[in-house]
Amino acid sequence: MKQNSGLTLVVYTMCALAFTVSVARAADPLPSWNDTAPKKDIIAFVTKVTQEGSPDFIPMAERIATFDNDGTLWAEQPLPFQLFFTLDRVKALAPQHPEWKDKEPFASLLKGEVKKALAGGEKAIYEILMYTHAGMTTDEFEKIVKSWIVTARHPKTGKPYTEMVYQPMLELLAYLRSNGFKTYIVSGGGAEFMRPWTEKVYGIPPEQVIGSSIKEEYAMRDGIPVIVRLPELNFIDDKEGKPVGIQQHIGRRPIASFGNTDGDLQMMQWTAAGKGASLCLYIHHTDDAREWAYDRKSLAGKFDKGLDEAKARGWTVVDMKNDWNKVFAYEKNK
Amino acid sequence: MKQNSGLTLVVYTMCALAFTVSVARAADPLPSWNDTAPKKDIIAFVTKVTQEGSPDFIPMAERIATFDNDGTLWAEQPLPFQLFFTLDRVKALAPQHPEWKDKEPFASLLKGEVKKALAGGEKAIYEILMYTHAGMTTDEFEKIVKSWIVTARHPKTGKPYTEMVYQPMLELLAYLRSNGFKTYIVSGGGAEFMRPWTEKVYGIPPEQVIGSSIKEEYAMRDGIPVIVRLPELNFIDDKEGKPVGIQQHIGRRPIASFGNTDGDLQMMQWTAAGKGASLCLYIHHTDDAREWAYDRKSLAGKFDKGLDEAKARGWTVVDMKNDWNKVFAYEKNK
Repeated sequence: MKQNSGLTLVVYTMCALAFTVSVARAADPLPSWNDTAPKKDIIAFVTKVTQEGSPDFIPMAERIATFDNDGTLWAEQPLPFQLFFTLDRVKALAPQHPEWKDKEPFASLLKGEVKKALAGGEKAIYEILMYTHAGMTTDEFEKIVKSWIVTARHPKTGKPYTEMVYQPMLELLAYLRSNGFKTYIVSGGGAEFMRPWTEKVYGIPPEQVIGSSIKEEYAMRDGIPVIVRLPELNFIDDKEGKPVGIQQHIGRRPIASFGNTDGDLQMMQWTAAGKGASLCLYIHHTDDAREWAYDRKSLAGKFDKGLDEAKARGWTVVDMKNDWNKVFAYEKNK
Repeated sequence: MKQNSGLTLVVYTMCALAFTVSVARAADPLPSWNDTAPKKDIIAFVTKVTQEGSPDFIPMAERIATFDNDGTLWAEQPLPFQLFFTLDRVKALAPQHPEWKDKEPFASLLKGEVKKALAGGEKAIYEILMYTHAGMTTDEFEKIVKSWIVTARHPKTGKPYTEMVYQPMLELLAYLRSNGFKTYIVSGGGAEFMRPWTEKVYGIPPEQVIGSSIKEEYAMRDGIPVIVRLPELNFIDDKEGKPVGIQQHIGRRPIASFGNTDGDLQMMQWTAAGKGASLCLYIHHTDDAREWAYDRKSLAGKFDKGLDEAKARGWTVVDMKNDWNKVFAYEKNK
């Protein structure tokens, strides 16, 4: 007995030490967040849903957190980054399409006149997207994205797009996961445009990326099975589409949602209407010095109805300028 | 130093003990499988892809295993179980539809003449499915399924359908998960018909259930957000649809696939064409005494082209009669 007690004590002591170390390490899981209301809201929410015995406790399997991507995890100005990818693809494909020189919307695009090209409205955008995102296999498209994402540079900062991710949000993703949350991207962007790099950049694996999609078809080519990307829209994962995408993909309602535009409002409403505790957090782009300032009148990332509803319902709104002491990871610490 | 060494020794010893216990426990992870070829194939595959340093090692994140449901995880005779659900729904809804008495395919269904009802072909089936699976919110449909699954009984065995699951497959699911695999259902059945019970029955959470689906729409009802199930097909997750469903949902190729019909063949081909090691396993229903015997000529669960291709390519084929010492968990041990 005595020997056993001694051994038990040793093990208990080791466990206690390990626990102390991990608590010390976890002391500030969100160092890039100032000690203002949003950080307090996040920590209070995570604490109450993870504390066994708490009336707000939520079992680990149900801790689903959904994140918009453009403007929420990475920047989206002066245009959503997938549009830069699309423009680069038009340029790369132009030699195979000599007719584009005289054909809109491609003619304007190739001259760098983006606004004029997009003046053709949805039909023009649709045509550009289908030429640049369809007509190849899924393996081929993955290679194209992987090659672009490491070579392309942002027109203003000169940084790779994957460095224009928000340091506070990377900390938030890690903090939620360390508390048993499953983190998902729910974006209006293309799922297969994001999946090749989200695991490395955000720690979010491809199966946890929900996005817009085009139709795909299984086919045999010289005895080798391929999946071919077809020039036909399948699903638009934006606005009313976000709760539907969540339902079809996850089959559970999120308990926490993060976004920055009116396109995320329905996802927030759906999250807030769950039975238990929930957290709805909007990021308000207010920092023209470190990033961009835009909201109600912005073409990319319009935040108008969402801002009103967030205020009316007491959801958490991050004022980027005041609540984040760092925006991008590459900024020097203050 | 001496004290530290002693402490280290104690901890090492405990670890070794714990390891021994866990190895002893795991000695036969598949007790309902006879020691025939399929069991050996499974264990050899899992061993080689999980052993670090092995040329066939596959990182944990890429260990995706996809399982068909009907006839692979639970039985599917005399009809796939979702059809029994559908028939029960027609009966339950009949009082609200007095016109069904004189209208096919409902009139025949209500008289119990299933074959006559289905003689109307795809159009008839489509109409029945839309009346029974659409027109309610996702929350309402979930309640309907949850209530049916605990009360309905199989016409031959008198057992709840969720007890007609294959014990060897439950062991296989657990064995794969304990080796770092993520287990998915990829079924021709409806995703939202399966999700309410797969976690409890198979340990597979809703977000790992891929299936056929109808279109859904986000709406506000009296200020409360709902998702409404619409009478329009969205996706058929069968045959060529299975690799596409996997791609759209998971975005990674499986390294192991399990099925029992021609409807699973494309999923197997897609799995086998991956770069690294893969396991394709077909279940052949050969046991008329404990279950059912059917293959090339069966209406439900036709296994013809798949059987030929499996043999030609040396895939694993389970002969249920010879390779499983137990079929259903409720059978007595021999």
